[in-house]
Amino acid sequence: MSKLKRNERIGAIVKILCDSPNKVFTLNYFTNRFDSAKSTISEDLVIVKKIMEEMSLGKVVTIAGASGGAKYVPQMGREEKQALIERICEDIRKPERVMPGKYLYMADILYNPTYTKGIGDIFAEKFSDDHTKVDYVLTIETKGIPIAMMTARGLNVPLVIARHENKVTEGSKISINYISGTTGNLQTMYISKNAFKKDSNVLIVDDFMKAGGSAKGMTQLVHEMDCHVAGVCVLFDTTNPSQKLLDKYISLIKYEGIDAKDAIMVHPNYEYL
Amino acid sequence: MSKLKRNERIGAIVKILCDSPNKVFTLNYFTNRFDSAKSTISEDLVIVKKIMEEMSLGKVVTIAGASGGAKYVPQMGREEKQALIERICEDIRKPERVMPGKYLYMADILYNPTYTKGIGDIFAEKFSDDHTKVDYVLTIETKGIPIAMMTARGLNVPLVIARHENKVTEGSKISINYISGTTGNLQTMYISKNAFKKDSNVLIVDDFMKAGGSAKGMTQLVHEMDCHVAGVCVLFDTTNPSQKLLDKYISLIKYEGIDAKDAIMVHPNYEYL
Repeated sequence: MSKLKRNERIGAIVKILCDSPNKVFTLNYFTNRFDSAKSTISEDLVIVKKIMEEMSLGKVVTIAGASGGAKYVPQMGREEKQALIERICEDIRKPERVMPGKYLYMADILYNPTYTKGIGDIFAEKFSDDHTKVDYVLTIETKGIPIAMMTARGLNVPLVIARHENKVTEGSKISINYISGTTGNLQTMYISKNAFKKDSNVLIVDDFMKAGGSAKGMTQLVHEMDCHVAGVCVLFDTTNPSQKLLDKYISLIKYEGIDAKDAIMVHPNYEYL
Repeated sequence: MSKLKRNERIGAIVKILCDSPNKVFTLNYFTNRFDSAKSTISEDLVIVKKIMEEMSLGKVVTIAGASGGAKYVPQMGREEKQALIERICEDIRKPERVMPGKYLYMADILYNPTYTKGIGDIFAEKFSDDHTKVDYVLTIETKGIPIAMMTARGLNVPLVIARHENKVTEGSKISINYISGTTGNLQTMYISKNAFKKDSNVLIVDDFMKAGGSAKGMTQLVHEMDCHVAGVCVLFDTTNPSQKLLDKYISLIKYEGIDAKDAIMVHPNYEYL
């Protein structure tokens, strides 16, 4: 391969950084890969940083020192975030989503690759500061998994999935019982005994919060394993009950229910957008 | 914002394309966003295409004509694919993975954001040709979901998740019964009646195949809904039984079991790498 030009190096650096959010690439990595001097790569990184910020395409953080380098952190512009969540709300409002029993069909939204990527990036951005170091993302099967996976990817940390059943194929477990706000039933959630290293910071991510039973259960699991809850993020929560089992959580969409005319009342929660 | 220089436009184009694999962006999109002439953007795209291919960073496909534009398609170099799968195999071989009953603890591998992204890209690449147009990715809960989600993201198509239980919150279902190769039990899988549009092509993705019961069950679900199976992809399959319930599938890792000394016998399936 012939030596790359600046604009070629910049294209390649953007691809490499953005493919692995929150992963630090050293200057040496780039000097080896591009057969270029450190000073050249440093100048490239200045341009990459500038363009990402100017175009609201994310943040590139450069790290000084011997082990220095650069990493990409997901960061959407405010308008882009709001546009995404407004688009999701519009999609939720489709009348055909109302199921018997006034449940909402949401699977296609929760498993949509564009939506989940965007939601994951919004959550990851909020926990990408150095003072809120997240070590794991935790969710409970099933519907929150895609969003949780995209959040874990944005943060470059492992995902852990709590299960409703104690699978023999997965070794020793810790379990807790909790009341599901959706069904009112007593349920059990299980997690592998070795899922977290002691003293880790765990970010809890789920699709939906009504009373907060599942999220509360997950915080108990985290504490049970001598770890800390870094935060709780859900895509949407209900306005009723207004009093949740958890004091502090991030929700991107407020769901008020279905009115007498079967209209779905849902709106972006601009507080977090 | 002042007018961008070529190297800035190239950085931004790479970010925009790679953020949305398999999504076509028109020339107009870029001319508006960068306030540049079509000829300028076309030249930028030639450079982007070249650098991605030279550096094995993926493929950029340019589409000619009035509605023309460009899209990014995940494409790893052969060495990079093999290195990823070899690294995963090495990780699987850790002795502490052996659970009572000779089960393997695999959750941390299946939920690792770097691994799942890479595996999803490998699967997506194989089905990104125009003659194998995929409309949906289908998996069954729980452990295959992250890989399936990353594959769906690479292909830019919706993910559909078959469930083991008939959740009342999700409307009408189609169900089929199948024998799980792992447990030997008769199980049921459910899918929403409206999950697929008729005549769609569905790519089945799962973490693991032993006899092929789950994958076979999913193909039955697909046919039940008047759709076609575009392919079946699993991260790993067992060498025993060698005769599966399905003739044709893609597996990236061959698992031969645990030998008398508790060594985990696993190796990359170079046929698909």
